[in-house]
Amino acid sequence: MKKVGIVMGSDSDLPVIEKAVKLLRELDISFEAHVFSAHRTPDEARTFAAGAREAGFGVILAAAGMAAHLAGAIAANTTLPVIGIPCRGPALDGLDALLSTVQMPSGIPVACVGIGNGANAALLAAEILAVEDAALAERLAKKREADREAVLRKDAGIAERL
Amino acid sequence: MKKVGIVMGSDSDLPVIEKAVKLLRELDISFEAHVFSAHRTPDEARTFAAGAREAGFGVILAAAGMAAHLAGAIAANTTLPVIGIPCRGPALDGLDALLSTVQMPSGIPVACVGIGNGANAALLAAEILAVEDAALAERLAKKREADREAVLRKDAGIAERL
Amino acid sequence: MKKVGIVMGSDSDLPVIEKAVKLLRELDISFEAHVFSAHRTPDEARTFAAGAREAGFGVILAAAGMAAHLAGAIAANTTLPVIGIPCRGPALDGLDALLSTVQMPSGIPVACVGIGNGANAALLAAEILAVEDAALAERLAKKREADREAVLRKDAGIAERL
Amino acid sequence: MKKVGIVMGSDSDLPVIEKAVKLLRELDISFEAHVFSAHRTPDEARTFAAGAREAGFGVILAAAGMAAHLAGAIAANTTLPVIGIPCRGPALDGLDALLSTVQMPSGIPVACVGIGNGANAALLAAEILAVEDAALAERLAKKREADREAVLRKDAGIAERL
Amino acid sequence: MKKVGIVMGSDSDLPVIEKAVKLLRELDISFEAHVFSAHRTPDEARTFAAGAREAGFGVILAAAGMAAHLAGAIAANTTLPVIGIPCRGPALDGLDALLSTVQMPSGIPVACVGIGNGANAALLAAEILAVEDAALAERLAKKREADREAVLRKDAGIAERL
Amino acid sequence: MKKVGIVMGSDSDLPVIEKAVKLLRELDISFEAHVFSAHRTPDEARTFAAGAREAGFGVILAAAGMAAHLAGAIAANTTLPVIGIPCRGPALDGLDALLSTVQMPSGIPVACVGIGNGANAALLAAEILAVEDAALAERLAKKREADREAVLRKDAGIAERL
Amino acid sequence: MKKVGIVMGSDSDLPVIEKAVKLLRELDISFEAHVFSAHRTPDEARTFAAGAREAGFGVILAAAGMAAHLAGAIAANTTLPVIGIPCRGPALDGLDALLSTVQMPSGIPVACVGIGNGANAALLAAEILAVEDAALAERLAKKREADREAVLRKDAGIAERL
Amino acid sequence: MKKVGIVMGSDSDLPVIEKAVKLLRELDISFEAHVFSAHRTPDEARTFAAGAREAGFGVILAAAGMAAHLAGAIAANTTLPVIGIPCRGPALDGLDALLSTVQMPSGIPVACVGIGNGANAALLAAEILAVEDAALAERLAKKREADREAVLRKDAGIAERL
Repeated sequence: MKKVGIVMGSDSDLPVIEKAVKLLRELDISFEAHVFSAHRTPDEARTFAAGAREAGFGVILAAAGMAAHLAGAIAANTTLPVIGIPCRGPALDGLDALLSTVQMPSGIPVACVGIGNGANAALLAAEILAVEDAALAERLAKKREADREAVLRKDAGIAERL
Repeated sequence: MKKVGIVMGSDSDLPVIEKAVKLLRELDISFEAHVFSAHRTPDEARTFAAGAREAGFGVILAAAGMAAHLAGAIAANTTLPVIGIPCRGPALDGLDALLSTVQMPSGIPVACVGIGNGANAALLAAEILAVEDAALAERLAKKREADREAVLRKDAGIAERL
Repeated sequence: MKKVGIVMGSDSDLPVIEKAVKLLRELDISFEAHVFSAHRTPDEARTFAAGAREAGFGVILAAAGMAAHLAGAIAANTTLPVIGIPCRGPALDGLDALLSTVQMPSGIPVACVGIGNGANAALLAAEILAVEDAALAERLAKKREADREAVLRKDAGIAERL
Repeated sequence: MKKVGIVMGSDSDLPVIEKAVKLLRELDISFEAHVFSAHRTPDEARTFAAGAREAGFGVILAAAGMAAHLAGAIAANTTLPVIGIPCRGPALDGLDALLSTVQMPSGIPVACVGIGNGANAALLAAEILAVEDAALAERLAKKREADREAVLRKDAGIAERL
Repeated sequence: MKKVGIVMGSDSDLPVIEKAVKLLRELDISFEAHVFSAHRTPDEARTFAAGAREAGFGVILAAAGMAAHLAGAIAANTTLPVIGIPCRGPALDGLDALLSTVQMPSGIPVACVGIGNGANAALLAAEILAVEDAALAERLAKKREADREAVLRKDAGIAERL
Repeated sequence: MKKVGIVMGSDSDLPVIEKAVKLLRELDISFEAHVFSAHRTPDEARTFAAGAREAGFGVILAAAGMAAHLAGAIAANTTLPVIGIPCRGPALDGLDALLSTVQMPSGIPVACVGIGNGANAALLAAEILAVEDAALAERLAKKREADREAVLRKDAGIAERL
Repeated sequence: MKKVGIVMGSDSDLPVIEKAVKLLRELDISFEAHVFSAHRTPDEARTFAAGAREAGFGVILAAAGMAAHLAGAIAANTTLPVIGIPCRGPALDGLDALLSTVQMPSGIPVACVGIGNGANAALLAAEILAVEDAALAERLAKKREADREAVLRKDAGIAERL
Repeated sequence: MKKVGIVMGSDSDLPVIEKAVKLLRELDISFEAHVFSAHRTPDEARTFAAGAREAGFGVILAAAGMAAHLAGAIAANTTLPVIGIPCRGPALDGLDALLSTVQMPSGIPVACVGIGNGANAALLAAEILAVEDAALAERLAKKREADREAVLRKDAGIAERL
């Protein structure tokens, strides 16, 4: 199975990435994580993106805040699917990162997930790798079923909490 | 190669879908389009999603406006990657559809592209299918190169337009 | 009198629901509460909604945050009145849930109340049940009068607090 | 069957109200329409609201734009369910009317529908009246079925439009 | 000199009102404060507004949060100038109260100040009363001069704080 | 009676000012209009403001768009009441001008009216001048009554328009 | 004098750039314009930025819409001052481009001007070049004076237009 | 080398300014700081701006919150480049200050940086002064390189933190 590349713009995004990493491990998907800044280390970000397919990556997650250009900068240098995770910064409650990540111009797509939603970024990466990997698809289906059962257990116990 | 499923919430979203279809045809990717509403035909939407992997789909595009639940409703019933395209409605300039599509709860990811950006939805679908399809990856790389050259031609001619 | 159905997308919405439950009890209205997720348990949500009228429910409250599809998913499967309560999530201060709940497409209405306003959801449910129930209408009128008197008492004491 | 009261803040809201009236007529629900302004004719608005239950109304629709206080002003004077329809004004694309209508303080609920969505306001009114009226519930179910079939017809014809 | 009427929608708005009261006292302007809710005590609010000119008031301050209708409801019942103070509520950071207060329809003006800015509401009230009161205008000018000097003192000391 | 000063930041704001002028003429209030820019003619704006009380003005209207500093710049140089009219610019639908006008720091109040609402600015000016002018208060009361009757006439004719 | 570099993300931004070019010509400042996309021609954008100081540029203007990364991508590759011009795209009225341009992370500044404000971008560039160029500073002062006189002429004629 | 002028609207903006001062000291750029309010000390702000070029300043930083007019008021009185730093106030999370600072009318540019981003304001000032100062440009390049290396060190250590 191809690897997942994880790129974060700053180590302040680590709590968001940890949610992704936890799920990738649960799903037995190998990954490699980097701190690259679209602005402070643009060359490293570009080199990583340009060589990612060759290096065995199948999808790349990119998490950044504020004028979050990281996902777009990665996407500009690869035709692998790139998943953008907008992160909350010190102002505007994540709206800046969301719009900077999702409103990409035609030609260079980014797959944007919700603000700070590292878990969904990992699941989306898994879904992408599972398109041609029945065993992984099976693991995803089991994870869904487990989530469903967790909700049902909460439903069963809600009456006595009210 | 697996097919792309296209679902739109209303035929008023057709102009957005046409941009996706044009690119899928250019990239020689087969697709099947449907009008399903998350609210007016929830059973048809669910049945389509639940059977999509079995039916040979590899990725599903879902376009909807306003409280755009379609992508999320599809994603709730499949572990295939689902790409959401928020569409502009009669008020709020697409912000409602964007937030309704991108802010999915943990567990059920949607890959959101920009407001009305059918072209990027198709390219993202192609990138996903190309993870394990070198020939498609090649066609995507050529498309990128053609886009690049189109910009360079505009650059070459800009001086005399000013 | 018909029952009120209460559905919450996650037990993290419990503080909002508790405000509703407190008022329903004050007004002597019976209810039944569930944790159903539009995305993680879509079948349970649909089955509940589709059978709600038959099961003696008169109105359904649905509370959810982020891309809050729960009220809409319930409404898509019943013609009972559905009251949506958008809840604040970790970003955007409730705007995402508000727009996802209120901007429903024509054909499938949701009665949206203010962000996190479980109390008003319960009062609206009571008003709906009171259309044909004079005794409940009387209890609502008394609650209004009590609220009015509470304001008047505060008015009487404000001078000495300044 | 009880009547539906329709109140609009200005006759510039007529296109929104016409969508409601069309549906009420289709569903064979009697109604009475008024132009009342929360600010320019506050006494008339209050008198109407205070006497509405007595006068045979079961639910009231209130449409207004900008700092849209009409639904709230009606709701403050009756315990009948009040449905607010925020209308787009000359600026801010309806956001002002939406927030002014939906963010009611605890104690005085308004059932808010989407911006300019007269159709859903009428359907919600019908759903409220149908709680205790099986024949109207039947007509609503048929309307839903007709809407569903309209989507299915569009689905059937979509392939040849692409 | 005419009195200033102060109306707040809830005693949770007291911290905002206290800033206004402090300034009115400094400027030696008499006032009378009330807790009136546009929705829970609409009659009291209307009666107060309708009789305010007769009762010797010259201007009315109205503070409220969320769908803040109080200033508008007061303004609808008097031709005295009404100053609206939008207050922050539990969501949306005051934007709801701001738009509900400032976007009044033509015919019924409200003089809106900044979110939670009780001090400016009091100063604006004083400016209005000072149009025909040279002594008060003089006190306002002195207050301005004192504010100016406070800034200059901070300017004089800033170098050593850096 | 004191005069009303009218200042606009650009003659593109003329349509907004014309609504104010029409009402001032109806109410028989004398005024003097200027085009002053807070940024391009700051000295003229300041000189006008600083001398306004002396020159017989009682209140000043200031209309501007975008980063609308005009009302604040006038207010910084006079203790007369200043009414700010935020105007729509080429982007953001008036939100920029609204926030730039209304969110004044403590100490320098501006009385903000709705976006582009020249009519309410004039009425507010009239209300301010009427605090000590019973004849003008009477004319304002008549204008209110005429507005009320216009709504009642529309109410009387609405049934046949539906 | 050093040259001004002008970069636009697409030739659809030409109307914005034309306003800049007109002013640069008026002020007798030489410039060179390019169409470079941060995403479609990232290498050309980087190469241009990295060599700009050497090539005799003193400041760079970058105009782009949507998730407007162009100014940031240029700024990441030069320590020349970079002026970002956010442009309106098909949705959200320029808010996306504004936040993507202005909210740069610490370390890589962009000087952002208003949405679509090519004129101010050119003037800012001129101000930067004029820091060490007294003759250009003089031309800027004359331009300011001419703008001031244009406002004064409009002020002189406003009375008869009302 | 020319000095940097620093102006803050209130000493509550000091934490933002401290980030700027730290960087100016690192880069060995002399500066002079002031507390001037566009509204409470407009004359001092104007006098400072009008004499700044003569007094040896090359660029001015202006930090303010809410209806942040300070940068614009400074810019209106000088043709030196003015850098605006919008600061977060008690409501709206900095959006008010951002729009008030960045949306300047044509003719009077302000170079706006991100909300609260004193560091970038200082770096931008340095870049402006470095256009004609090769030694400073060199120090800026070294600072960039140091920032780059800090990211690379974090990248090197990220694997073991996950």
